[in-house]
Amino acid sequence: MAERQERAIRTRESILEAMASLFIEVGYEAATIAALVERTGLTRGALYFHFPTKEAMARGVLARAVTREGILPQTHKLQEWVDLGLLLAYRLPREPMLRAAVQLSVDPRARGLFGTRWPDWIDLGEDLLVEAKERGELLPHAVPAEIARLAVGAWTGVQLVTEALPDRLDLSEEIARLYQLILPNVASIGVLAKLDTSPYRAERLLGPAADADAAGKPLT
Amino acid sequence: MAERQERAIRTRESILEAMASLFIEVGYEAATIAALVERTGLTRGALYFHFPTKEAMARGVLARAVTREGILPQTHKLQEWVDLGLLLAYRLPREPMLRAAVQLSVDPRARGLFGTRWPDWIDLGEDLLVEAKERGELLPHAVPAEIARLAVGAWTGVQLVTEALPDRLDLSEEIARLYQLILPNVASIGVLAKLDTSPYRAERLLGPAADADAAGKPLT
Repeated sequence: MAERQERAIRTRESILEAMASLFIEVGYEAATIAALVERTGLTRGALYFHFPTKEAMARGVLARAVTREGILPQTHKLQEWVDLGLLLAYRLPREPMLRAAVQLSVDPRARGLFGTRWPDWIDLGEDLLVEAKERGELLPHAVPAEIARLAVGAWTGVQLVTEALPDRLDLSEEIARLYQLILPNVASIGVLAKLDTSPYRAERLLGPAADADAAGKPLT
Repeated sequence: MAERQERAIRTRESILEAMASLFIEVGYEAATIAALVERTGLTRGALYFHFPTKEAMARGVLARAVTREGILPQTHKLQEWVDLGLLLAYRLPREPMLRAAVQLSVDPRARGLFGTRWPDWIDLGEDLLVEAKERGELLPHAVPAEIARLAVGAWTGVQLVTEALPDRLDLSEEIARLYQLILPNVASIGVLAKLDTSPYRAERLLGPAADADAAGKPLT
């Protein structure tokens, strides 16, 4: 029984991943169940058993999109806020599900049907920035709600443009540059010097030996 | 003859505007010539006379998207770079053609067919930032190519998120905040104090009595 449930969860996951890839390649509108049948090798019946409609699949993809996965407690809350963005930049090119969620958010038809996860990302960032502010880690004029909102917008657009440019820039490096551009006007001076905005930080945070201490140390 | 040509230009323009609105509302894929016939009141024959395909219309929309319109010579080149972004933020909610061009750039199917105008925007910004750098208006560590690229990404994403959020924020105000966040790490100290990043600046630049001097003065 447990084994059958596990198999069902794996199948469900593989359907979502295949649909995510389709959304990325052709967009929400042009993604069809027929193409999904071809791609997964599953029957229509099996697909419909897990997701009755394409809409249900899109909701399933979006539900995975907001995650604190990989964020470890740090000395400075502002570092955790930076980690949120660096981790997502590292994971996005490697995880079709995350890229599909961004795609569904920028697609006008899909957005009209499902909304976006941007408000959740903004809330997540704002919570961390409010804590950082309370601890005196931010410059006095920095407004957590505004910075959280602008950062989610900037992050999203930098990802889109990076992906579209012929330069084949690394997203982790580009997002690291974005934080390096913004942070001097956000972090108090003492904290700024201690923040790690390396594009390699996310890999260390997610790595098998990762823990808060190791991740806090600069790469030497 | 001249009158007939003028009428043809106006018809061409109204077709592009109607198609731009359709792209915004339903996306590239779902926009149909049938819907365009209904919206413009023109016959299929008349539409095809001006644009043989939907692809041709999309190219027409994208061709209008990059413009220095409204940018006037300023004491500081960095101000002209800021004006580029403020003007676009002011015009975008008022001009479906510009919004449609952004939409076509973020749509994976349309982007695959037509590419995006982001490289042109980045070039335009980089030219201004290189001049600003040569005049000593930038901080020593500021790299024009990187800042131009990050700003186009950030601008695009802030626009997308602003449009999608339920908060109904004003795009000009939000983009002004974005520049206020970035500029302290771009402009040399003396120049920073003299830059105008007011959300009302674009309106003044485009206003009937606008000239370089008037636009350069703060609103009193």
